[in-house]
Amino acid sequence: MAIIKLVLAYDGSGFHGWAKQPSRRTVEGELERAIARVMGRAPRLSAAGRTDAGVHARGQVVSFNSDADPDEVLGSANGALAPEVVVLLASLAPDGFDARHSATAREYRYRIDTGPFPDPFTAEYIWHRPGDLKLSAMREAARALVGAHDFASFGRPPREGGGTVRNLEKLTVSKAGDSVEIVARANAFLRQMVRSLVGTLVDVGEGRIDPGDIPEVIVAKDRSLAGRLVPAHGLTLERVLYGRGL
Amino acid sequence: MAIIKLVLAYDGSGFHGWAKQPSRRTVEGELERAIARVMGRAPRLSAAGRTDAGVHARGQVVSFNSDADPDEVLGSANGALAPEVVVLLASLAPDGFDARHSATAREYRYRIDTGPFPDPFTAEYIWHRPGDLKLSAMREAARALVGAHDFASFGRPPREGGGTVRNLEKLTVSKAGDSVEIVARANAFLRQMVRSLVGTLVDVGEGRIDPGDIPEVIVAKDRSLAGRLVPAHGLTLERVLYGRGL
Repeated sequence: MAIIKLVLAYDGSGFHGWAKQPSRRTVEGELERAIARVMGRAPRLSAAGRTDAGVHARGQVVSFNSDADPDEVLGSANGALAPEVVVLLASLAPDGFDARHSATAREYRYRIDTGPFPDPFTAEYIWHRPGDLKLSAMREAARALVGAHDFASFGRPPREGGGTVRNLEKLTVSKAGDSVEIVARANAFLRQMVRSLVGTLVDVGEGRIDPGDIPEVIVAKDRSLAGRLVPAHGLTLERVLYGRGL
Repeated sequence: MAIIKLVLAYDGSGFHGWAKQPSRRTVEGELERAIARVMGRAPRLSAAGRTDAGVHARGQVVSFNSDADPDEVLGSANGALAPEVVVLLASLAPDGFDARHSATAREYRYRIDTGPFPDPFTAEYIWHRPGDLKLSAMREAARALVGAHDFASFGRPPREGGGTVRNLEKLTVSKAGDSVEIVARANAFLRQMVRSLVGTLVDVGEGRIDPGDIPEVIVAKDRSLAGRLVPAHGLTLERVLYGRGL
């Protein structure tokens, strides 16, 4: 049977996250139902990022086994779900491709509006947190976080007892006007890890955590030493990276 | 009694337009209620733009008579209504100022996404209309529309029997990637006039109306000759202009 790969964007505001749950509206549940109309049965979806409730995506990647026509899948899914969920690309993937297991890295972006008032047009996608942040201290902390570490202070493993070592390849802080953006890329993330990393950087930016203490926070493997957990709605899964030819 | 001037932004998606209506949720109705908490009674609001259902604002201007503290009005209104409606500025206005009657011009922006798929994050603020538009024809039509004309072909007067001559000071079409934006500025607009002007430009951009026919459409004073009415949700009242010192 062939493998179909989808790239999708969604506004997570109205969903209880990606992963299917009985009697709750989830992106996976809605997408599965839309694809089932084409396939005649529910597909078994593999997704690169299992986004939490309220988290958005611009480049989520999903795969499933099916002999359906990718164009029909795209048309049916968009007909049922757009513009809340939009399939941007549907294609046949190489043998053995799996959206989750083949992914080599995930990249998330967290958006903060530090201006005095929220913007009615972006309030569901950007965290409004009025007041300046110390960017240089945040960048110093970010540099200390980058690398392969045991990130137990910053999140839980997807399964109980799972490992907590991850390779944080990139963590950058940029600013344009009142807008502060944090980009995080890793081979994979622990649960709530991006929001904990961002919360730690914000605490550093507010002077609550000294950037020089970050190595200790990592070594401690104690979540109470990391910063706050920032709200989910500022977070977007921007893209998923795969090896050559995938 | 003093005059308070407010500048506000709102997401019009959840409102039946600006103007108060019994038993319908409107921006004026909600704002009036929020201000009444500070004043102890409902203010009588004058607004520069009486936006239709679904139309947004980034720079709506409102005035009312009150001896309340403008900062308290701002705080109370934002506490009750943000981020859906955000008061950006509250100040004392000069004697005789009236947000509607003192305004010398209104500027609206209409946003069109001509890309193949809607964007989940802007779908409520941008009209998704896939497919290229002929920009040069649209610009030629826009130039023919600018000026003081009887715009009866493009809208109804706010009151039955009212005049239909308006001075369209600016009508521009710009493009960046798949995004097309139309800015319209006039001393005042007829009802549905901006959406009719934009619809006419889109019909020109699709080759349905010849830009050379625009002068005839104006002279005919016949709404059936103008273009379609584009959806309300792509339209935003961007700013209101006043004379010096106001």
